[in-house]
Amino acid sequence: MFEKPLGMRDTLPNLFEYKKSVREQVASEISSWGYQYMATPTLEYYETVGSASSILDQQLFKLLDKDGHTLVLRPDMTAPIARVAASKLHKNIPLRLAYEANVYRAQQREGGRPAEFEQIGVELIGDPSLSSDAEVISLMIGALKRAGLASFKVAIGHIGYVNALFLEIVGNEERANVLRRFLYEKDYVGYRNHVRKLGLSSIDKERLLQLLNLRGGEMKIVEAMDLVESEEGKKAASELQRLWSMLDAYGVTEEIKIDFNLVSHMSYYTGILFEVYAENVGFQIGNGGRYDQLLAKFDTPMAATGFGIQLDRLLEALGKDAFQQKERACILYSQERLTEALALATEKRQRGEMIVMQEVSGVDDIDTFTKAFEDVSYLIGRNGKEDQS
Amino acid sequence: MFEKPLGMRDTLPNLFEYKKSVREQVASEISSWGYQYMATPTLEYYETVGSASSILDQQLFKLLDKDGHTLVLRPDMTAPIARVAASKLHKNIPLRLAYEANVYRAQQREGGRPAEFEQIGVELIGDPSLSSDAEVISLMIGALKRAGLASFKVAIGHIGYVNALFLEIVGNEERANVLRRFLYEKDYVGYRNHVRKLGLSSIDKERLLQLLNLRGGEMKIVEAMDLVESEEGKKAASELQRLWSMLDAYGVTEEIKIDFNLVSHMSYYTGILFEVYAENVGFQIGNGGRYDQLLAKFDTPMAATGFGIQLDRLLEALGKDAFQQKERACILYSQERLTEALALATEKRQRGEMIVMQEVSGVDDIDTFTKAFEDVSYLIGRNGKEDQS
Repeated sequence: MFEKPLGMRDTLPNLFEYKKSVREQVASEISSWGYQYMATPTLEYYETVGSASSILDQQLFKLLDKDGHTLVLRPDMTAPIARVAASKLHKNIPLRLAYEANVYRAQQREGGRPAEFEQIGVELIGDPSLSSDAEVISLMIGALKRAGLASFKVAIGHIGYVNALFLEIVGNEERANVLRRFLYEKDYVGYRNHVRKLGLSSIDKERLLQLLNLRGGEMKIVEAMDLVESEEGKKAASELQRLWSMLDAYGVTEEIKIDFNLVSHMSYYTGILFEVYAENVGFQIGNGGRYDQLLAKFDTPMAATGFGIQLDRLLEALGKDAFQQKERACILYSQERLTEALALATEKRQRGEMIVMQEVSGVDDIDTFTKAFEDVSYLIGRNGKEDQS
Repeated sequence: MFEKPLGMRDTLPNLFEYKKSVREQVASEISSWGYQYMATPTLEYYETVGSASSILDQQLFKLLDKDGHTLVLRPDMTAPIARVAASKLHKNIPLRLAYEANVYRAQQREGGRPAEFEQIGVELIGDPSLSSDAEVISLMIGALKRAGLASFKVAIGHIGYVNALFLEIVGNEERANVLRRFLYEKDYVGYRNHVRKLGLSSIDKERLLQLLNLRGGEMKIVEAMDLVESEEGKKAASELQRLWSMLDAYGVTEEIKIDFNLVSHMSYYTGILFEVYAENVGFQIGNGGRYDQLLAKFDTPMAATGFGIQLDRLLEALGKDAFQQKERACILYSQERLTEALALATEKRQRGEMIVMQEVSGVDDIDTFTKAFEDVSYLIGRNGKEDQS
C-alpha cells in the first residue's frame, strides 16, 4: 500500500545526511578548482535535449505539454549543460561548469536499477587540449579522495584507438561496430568467439585478440603503439602517452589503469574516455571522457570533456561506517515552563547542538519518543527544575 | 532556439551560489531545532500522492508508466512526506521532518509563474497541541531572520473561526463556501458586494463585514471573540489567544499580525494557518498551518502542522545586494610548467581559494578569458617565472 513508482526511492534522514556530507566533500574539491555549479530544469524538450543525450530512447520518461510537444525528464546533465553553454555562456571559453542533480531513467522491471539518482560532475567546455583531459581526470580523483574513497582505479582508454584498429583490420564501420558492441558490453568471451569466426588472416585475428591484453600500466601504451598501423591509431596511443605524463605531474598515476578496451557508450565519446571502479563494489561509480561532437548539436561546435559520479554508488563504495550521524538532544517541557525550556534550547542551539523542544502533552508514548535522543532534559511541572536524565 | 519548456528555468552559477547560501542559512536554523531532512521521489503515483495534495488537478504534470498508471511530478512536499510518515515513521511520534526540494506546477501560459521551484519547509507530525503550531511559526521566523530577512510579517488566522462565523450566519456550507472563496482570492471588494446582496438582517450583514476589520494586533482576538456566537468560533479565537501568548514567550510577536480573513487553501488546513509577507515584495514568500485530516488519507490519522518557504521569493525579498559572490583566481600556464602551476594552485586551494588552472594553448581569446577572474598568475614560457598580474 502507498507504493512508489517503479525504481523510485525515499531518502530517509540518516541516508539524507550521509549523502549530504559526501556531496559537500566532493563539491568542495570541485569548487576549489574553480568550477562553477549551475542547475537546469527537470523537464526539457525531447527534440532539444532528449535526443542529444546519450541515453537510450526507451529509458526516457516522456510526457506531452499542452501544445503537444514531447517533454522528457532529463536523463543526464551533459546535454542540458551543453544547451546552456551553447546558448548563453559560449562567449567566454573555456568554461568550467559543475552540477549536482538527479537524473531520470525509466526502468522496465521490478528490482532493477533506480529510476532517479543523483549525479555529481563537471564539464570543461571549449578547450580541445589534452591538458583539459588531464585536469578533469585529476579533479575526479581528487574529489573521490576528498570524499574518503581509499581504494579505486580509473581505467583510461581512447575510443580513437579502438576505432582506428578495428577499421584497419575489418575494413568497414559496420563490422567495426559489431566488435565495439562486444567491448561496450564487456563481453570478452563473445568478442573472442566472434573474432575467431571472422574471415580474416590469422595474423589479423591475433591482432584483434591482442587488443584484449592492452590493459594495465604505462607499458601497455607502447604495446598499443606497436599493434596499430594507421596514423590515427598511433596518434591516439601517443595522446594517451602524453596524458600519462601529465597525470604523473598531477601525482595520480597510482590510481590509473590503461585500458584500450574501453568503449563507454556506443556513440558519444570522441577521444580519451574513462571509468572509475572502487575495489569493493562491482560496478563503475563514475565515468567520463571527451565529447567533441555534442556542442555542434546546439549550433555551437566546441570541444568538451567532463566526468560524472553516481552519488549512490560512491556511498556504497564508501560503506556505511564512513558516516558519523549527528545526534539530537531533546528538552521535554510542560506548557508553563516554555520560557525556561526555550532559554535552555537557545543556549544549546547556539553551541551548535541540535535540540528538539517537545511539549509533554503532545506525546502519547514518552518512552518510545525519548529513546530517539542522545540526551533528554525534563522541564515538567510547576515546582522547580527536575534533573537531567 | 534551444528553448526550455514553459515555466522552466536555468540557474546560472551566480544565482546557484546565492540560492545555496540562503538555503544553507535556513537549513542551519531548521536543523538546530532538531528537524531531520529527508527526500522523496520526483515522480509519485497520481492515485496515492497526486490526489492527496492540495494542488489543482490542471496544475499537475502527469505521465503514464508502462503499466498504464498515472504518475505525477510532485506538486508539493507535504503529501509525499505524509506518505512516508504514515508508511515508515509513524511508530515514533511526534515526527519533526524537513525538506528542500523542487516542486512542479504546470503553467497554462507564457510569462506566468515558474513551473518548477524550490520549497524549503518542515512538517511536525503527530502532535495535536497548540505548542506545535507555536513551534513551527517561531521556527519559520527564526529561519527567515537567519537568512537575513529584515522586515517581514506573518499573518496568522484560524480557519475554524471563519468556518464557524460563516456557518452561524449564512446557515449552510454551500453559502459559506462562496464567502470563503472571496477571502481565499483576497477579493475583499467582491466579498463586500456579495455580502450586501445576501438575504440577511442588517445586523448579520454588518457582522460579516466586520470580519474584514479583524486584522491587526493582539486586540483583534478580543474583537473576534465578541463577534462570533458559536462555541466552535469562540474556541478558535481562544486558541489564537493562547497561541499569541506562546509566540510572545518565543519573542516573535513583533513579526506577527493577526488576520481572521486568512483562507490559504479552499480545503486543506484545519486550524491555525499563516502566510509570510516581506515588506518589499507583493506576494507571500511562505505559508503553512495545521492539516489534521491529511494523514488519514494514508490510513494513519495523525495531527500535523508545518510550513513551506518558496526559496525564489525569499531571494527576491532579500535582494541581490545580500549576496557576496566568491571570486575565482586563475593560473595561466604553458604545458612545460604544469608541475609548477600545480604546486601554486594546490597551495592556494589549500588556503580555501578557488583556483582555475588553464593551459594557455587551450584558450583562443586570452583577454576575454582572463577578465572573468579577480587575479591571474602567468606561468608561461620555459625561462623562469613571470610576474603575477
